[in-house]
Formats: sequence, C-alpha cells, structure tokens
Amino acid sequence: MSEIHLDPYLSRYAARTRGMGASEIRALFSVASRPEVVSLAGGSPDTAALDYDAVAAVFDEIARTNGPAALQYGGGQGLPALREQLVEVMAAEHTPAHADDLVVTTGGQQALDLVTKLFCDPGDVVVAEGPSYVGALGAFSAYQAEVVHAPMDEAGLMPDALADVLARLRHAGRRPKFLYTIPNHQNPAGVSLSTERRQRVLAIAEEHDLLVVEDNPYGLIDFKGEQHPTLRSLAPERVVYVGTLSKIFAPGIRVGWVAAAGPLRDKLILLKEASDLCQSNLAQCVAERWLATQPWLVQVGHFRELYRGRCAALIDELTNELPAACTWSVPTGGLFVWARMPEGIHTGELLARALSARVAYVPGRAFYADGGGARDLRLCFSSAREERIREGVRRLAEVVTSELELIRAVSG
Amino acid sequence: MSEIHLDPYLSRYAARTRGMGASEIRALFSVASRPEVVSLAGGSPDTAALDYDAVAAVFDEIARTNGPAALQYGGGQGLPALREQLVEVMAAEHTPAHADDLVVTTGGQQALDLVTKLFCDPGDVVVAEGPSYVGALGAFSAYQAEVVHAPMDEAGLMPDALADVLARLRHAGRRPKFLYTIPNHQNPAGVSLSTERRQRVLAIAEEHDLLVVEDNPYGLIDFKGEQHPTLRSLAPERVVYVGTLSKIFAPGIRVGWVAAAGPLRDKLILLKEASDLCQSNLAQCVAERWLATQPWLVQVGHFRELYRGRCAALIDELTNELPAACTWSVPTGGLFVWARMPEGIHTGELLARALSARVAYVPGRAFYADGGGARDLRLCFSSAREERIREGVRRLAEVVTSELELIRAVSG
Repeated sequence: MSEIHLDPYLSRYAARTRGMGASEIRALFSVASRPEVVSLAGGSPDTAALDYDAVAAVFDEIARTNGPAALQYGGGQGLPALREQLVEVMAAEHTPAHADDLVVTTGGQQALDLVTKLFCDPGDVVVAEGPSYVGALGAFSAYQAEVVHAPMDEAGLMPDALADVLARLRHAGRRPKFLYTIPNHQNPAGVSLSTERRQRVLAIAEEHDLLVVEDNPYGLIDFKGEQHPTLRSLAPERVVYVGTLSKIFAPGIRVGWVAAAGPLRDKLILLKEASDLCQSNLAQCVAERWLATQPWLVQVGHFRELYRGRCAALIDELTNELPAACTWSVPTGGLFVWARMPEGIHTGELLARALSARVAYVPGRAFYADGGGARDLRLCFSSAREERIREGVRRLAEVVTSELELIRAVSG
Repeated sequence: MSEIHLDPYLSRYAARTRGMGASEIRALFSVASRPEVVSLAGGSPDTAALDYDAVAAVFDEIARTNGPAALQYGGGQGLPALREQLVEVMAAEHTPAHADDLVVTTGGQQALDLVTKLFCDPGDVVVAEGPSYVGALGAFSAYQAEVVHAPMDEAGLMPDALADVLARLRHAGRRPKFLYTIPNHQNPAGVSLSTERRQRVLAIAEEHDLLVVEDNPYGLIDFKGEQHPTLRSLAPERVVYVGTLSKIFAPGIRVGWVAAAGPLRDKLILLKEASDLCQSNLAQCVAERWLATQPWLVQVGHFRELYRGRCAALIDELTNELPAACTWSVPTGGLFVWARMPEGIHTGELLARALSARVAYVPGRAFYADGGGARDLRLCFSSAREERIREGVRRLAEVVTSELELIRAVSG
C-alpha cells in the first residue's frame, strides 16, 4: 500500500536541492581512498601521529570517573570546562576571549552552518574569497545563499578588490549578510592575509557595516612560527570567530567552536539546539581532558614539523617535475598547495586520467561558486608520507605533461 | 576600531530569529538542575544504569586497535559497520532496512533538522501531533515552517481529525511538506498509536500524497512487551524513519539515524555534509562496538524495568496526591506522563511556584506551536529514583492544591 514516487515528490516539494554539487567530490574521495592511489585530494590531518597511550589514558579516565555525565545530554552552549580550555587555545593565537562567548559546535563546519542559518534567506549574498573552502560553499548553498567572490593574491584577500565587490553590490541594491574569510594559510589557496591588509579589510567591513566571519583552522600550523593578529583580536565585536580542534588534535571528535558577542551567541545557541540539541558530551570530555591533561602544544609542534617536511617535499617535487608553465603557492603553513595548470588544461576533465594514473587531487572548480578555477587544483600535503607525496607528484606531472603534448599536437 | 552594533544588525539582517522561544525552557532547566529540586522536567535516560566496565572496555579497544581511524574524518553517510548494527536495532523493532538506506545523524534531532532543511522554505506547513516533541517544533521553527497540529486521544493521533486538518489545508490551497509523528509512547503525550490507526493514517497520507516522518526513540522502551508495527514497516517508501541510540544506549554519544529511500537518502547525505561534514567517528566507533560486542538488548531490558517501576511510582503518587479534577495519561512505555490540570490553572504561570516548592516540570505550551497546552504539563519518570519521583509529585500536588484554593477563594 501507500505508494509514493520520491523523485517527483522531491522535485515538487524539496526546498533546498539547488547547488548541491558535492556528489562529484564524494565520488572522487571514494576512488581516492583506494590504497593504490596517492591521494593529495583530502584535507585530513595525520591522526596516526598522535600518542595513543595518551588517548587511551584520556578515554579510560572518562569511563572510570565521569561516565554517566559523559554519556548524558549536555547544554546547548557546550561544557563550561571545555570552553575554558578553548579560551586557552585562542590565547595561543593571541586572541582574547571569554568562555561565555563561546559555543561548542560539531567542527568548524557546523559553526559556518549555524551562522548561515541565522543570517541567510534564499537569494541572500555572502562574500567570500575566491577560491574558498568547499565546505563553506556547501553550507551557504544549502541555504540557497549566493556567493560573490573577492580575489586573492600571494598576500591574501585584496582589499581594493573587496571594496570594489562591495561597492558593486551596494550599487545593485544588494546587501551581503557577511564576509567569510580564512586569513591564515587559506584553504585552498595556501596564502595568508598580511597584517597590514587585515586592518584594511576591517576598515572596509566597517565602512559597509558588514559582519566578518573569520575561520581559523590552521593558525597554529605555521611553519615560520610567525603569527598575524587574528581579525577577531583586532575587532572583537565585528568578527565572528570560528575555531576547531580538527587540525591541532583530531577531526574524529568533531569539536569546533564559534566565538561571538552576546546577542549573536544567544541566537547561535538556540540554532545549535534546534539543529542537534547539544554537542556530544563524550567528545567534549575527550577534548577537555586532552587539552587539560596532555601537552597539546607539543603535539601541535609535532604536526607542524611533520607537515613542514611534507610541504617542502611537495614543493620540491613540483619544482622538479611539473612543466614550466605551471605555477603554485608556496605555503608557510596549513595543509594545502594551490596550483595553476597551463592554458588549455581543465583540471576537472583531467581528473579521470589522473585517477587512472593513481594520483588524486581536488579540481579548482570545487572552490568557486561561480565556475572559476578550471585551470587550478588543490594538493594536500598533510596526510601522505613524503615519499608518497613525491610519487604522487611524479604521476601528476606525467599526466599533465602528456595532456600538454596532446593539446599541442591537436592545436599545432 | 570597527564598531558594530549587534542587536540592530541582527534585527535588520538575521533571517531566522522568529519563533525561537526555547530560552524559557533553557532557563527552566538551569533551575531544575539544582540538587534540591526534584526535576521531572528533563527527558534524560538514566545513564548511571549502564555498565561502565563494559563502557571502559569499549573505549579501550578503540584506542588500542582503531585510534587513528576513530579520530579521523569519516564519510557523510556514516560508518558502514555502524549502519549494519543499526539495521539490527531496526530488526528488533520488526522493521526491515538496508544499511545503504541509513544516514547516521547527530541524534534523532539532526535527522529532523535535515529533513526540514530539505523540504521547508519559510512559510511552508508541517503537520504534527498536538502536543508534539519540543525539539521537533524548534527544528521546524528554525526554518520558519508553520506547524499545524492534529489532535490525539488515548490511542494516539486521531485519523478523522488528521483527515479534517489535511482537507482544510487543501481547501486553503496550502500543501503540507510532511506529517511528523511519534507513534510509539509519544513525547510528550505518553500514548501510542493503535495498530488499526496506523493503517488509516497511512491511507490518509497516501490520499494526500504526503510524506510521513516517523520518529521512534521509545519503541523498545515498552513495559508490556507489545509492539505495534512501525509505519516504516507498513509503507517503506512513504515513511522517513528516524531512530536514535539516546534512549537504548546513551544520548552523550549523539548517534541517531534516518532511514529513507534512495533519492531522499542522497539529498540527506549532502545536507549532512553541508551541516557538519560527518558524524564523529569516535562516537560511531563507540556505538558500533557497544552494539557488536555488548549484550545491548539486555541493557535495554534493564532500562525498561527501571522505567516501568518509576512510571508506576509516578502514576501511583499522582493518583494518591493530585486533586480530583486532574487527569493524566497512563503510559505503557517511554519516558513521559502528560497531565491536565483543572480549569483555571495555567501551568506556565504555575511553574515559578513549583520551582519555589522544589519541583520542576515542563509546561504544556512548550509542546504546541499554536499556544495550546496551557492547562497541561509533562512529567518525566526516567531520570529520578522512585522515592524522589514520589516526593516531587507530593510537592507538585501541594502547589496545585493551594493554587486551586486560591482560585476558588478569588472566584467566589
């Protein structure tokens, strides 16, 4: 009984099916996870580099001393003791915060989801760097928000170009709901916003009465030990700050947070509760005990050194192997290199050949909401070992080189 | 620099601040959590009743044998091995399912959020029992959906009344996006939908080409050992089934799931990824190992007997203590009793006096989107011990009795 035809039901009644082009990337990751493929595609930290005796000790302490609370519901804002520890993490980024202003979220991703849920009706505009984090674009698109990109160069978001974008929007009578930016070791571009530009970006935001959403997953993964001031530290009221333990501890606990001034924080708590009631107390206890009882900054330093070496191997091999017309960013931290292929190459179309050659990357188009990035690709250096990264680049270089030869043969 | 005034910013630019009246309940829970208060307000299972040697063994196995994967990102659909175990949980509810059709979510709450995100634009209609689960109402309201209630009696949702509601909506040119229902041991009403009515509700849904969202947190917490067939088992295509481990294992891991046919499942995975990328692998591993290695149905039986005794104590004390004009449901399972106070009593206004008398409940209005439930209140019997429940009812009875005396004195 009770037949229903779901495809027509969805096309008639579903509100939010536009723009959800993530299935291409899911298919990619499914192939990329095969052991014979060198995956430079994901964005995974190397969780094998953690100390599992320490992890086991943390788990055991929770089960033995705090089990019933760890397995119970919690409040919508997150455990106070964890929020106190997250204030310490922000202090390591020289960013003052108060535990009352923090809301614990399911990774940084949920913080972006909740901020978008709070501000965006269908058709609203969000301004973001181009390229930008694919997960943020997915969150914006799920609320049918339109992303307008502002370009970057090797010193990050370009203030004059941002001012132009905002002026054009104003002229068109469209008011963006917020600026989304990753100032440190941007994903995917692998560049950082210069200190001088941070002041200018904030001044432009002030001029346009624009809220700024600062996403900072990689600030502590800095190979030079130099830190630019966070936007939040420069303008605490204007900036909603998004943090995560995914890159400095572990993504599998899904603990991130958002720091926002009172009225915004209160709305975000309500939306968190409406979304999933509360963060996992177990995950929060693991995070809190890790930060409170383990030398977590030493572990961060360990990740930093590991990734610094892998990044250097990647850059070295790109320099040795890729055809001359290719260019790439040279990151000073984070997890990603952004590379541009020569004219004529479409990285989306090249991907099938790369996978056949047993190397995976993410095509640049995934990081643009407007079809940009066709010649670009993102390479991740955090998850594979150095020799595998070098092998992956050699495979990629062969594919690119033979594609270029094909293009030259056809066109000449 | 860069001043921003967040309250006006929010009132000008925030999309989703309507209807978020949950702050009253949060304030209530904050008072209710004081140790001197007998809280019959929450909906917490008694996590202290779990076997923590078993929990510690599960944690330790994960840290020792599967740490790097448990702390890594996962896929948007959830771990295949966990989904296989959740199929076994559904089998215990006599509901056939395939692991491919399941999407793991952050409790049942996120499943409701994602279904609403998929279907509801601002102003869209959702039909739900009146009263209904406050968290579902919060999820619907966060997407600015309008809830139209259909009434219940002691055998659950009334089919004729549901047909009337749908006919009235159709007449008004409004098409509900789905019917949301908790057929087993409904929260908050404490009643179950009779088997005969299940067929009729589905026939009505078919007549109106209406999707049904079946929320089943309490099906296995049945004091009589009798199970009605789930709606999903009667009409697999028409029914989106929402399950959770919160009541049969532990809410603190935040593991729920949604079972939906292919096209819907695919959209829900994309929305899950846009919301928080993926479920915590750690929480999923804990759930999977618990279900695969522990006698979880024995534990469910233990919860069932514990709550059966507490429910009996609550009903017994209500019968002994409450004034004659009060009525209440007599649950055959679940966590809640729904009680109606005599004419003249407003349970929202009475709450402050009840808290002064050191007993907490949830006022009935929280479970209606339309202002209903003013004389009703919800009592939870799962979290307090029997003698505390009896003490709480005695305190409540005193408050109600003296309120009634006051009303009679004033009115004549």
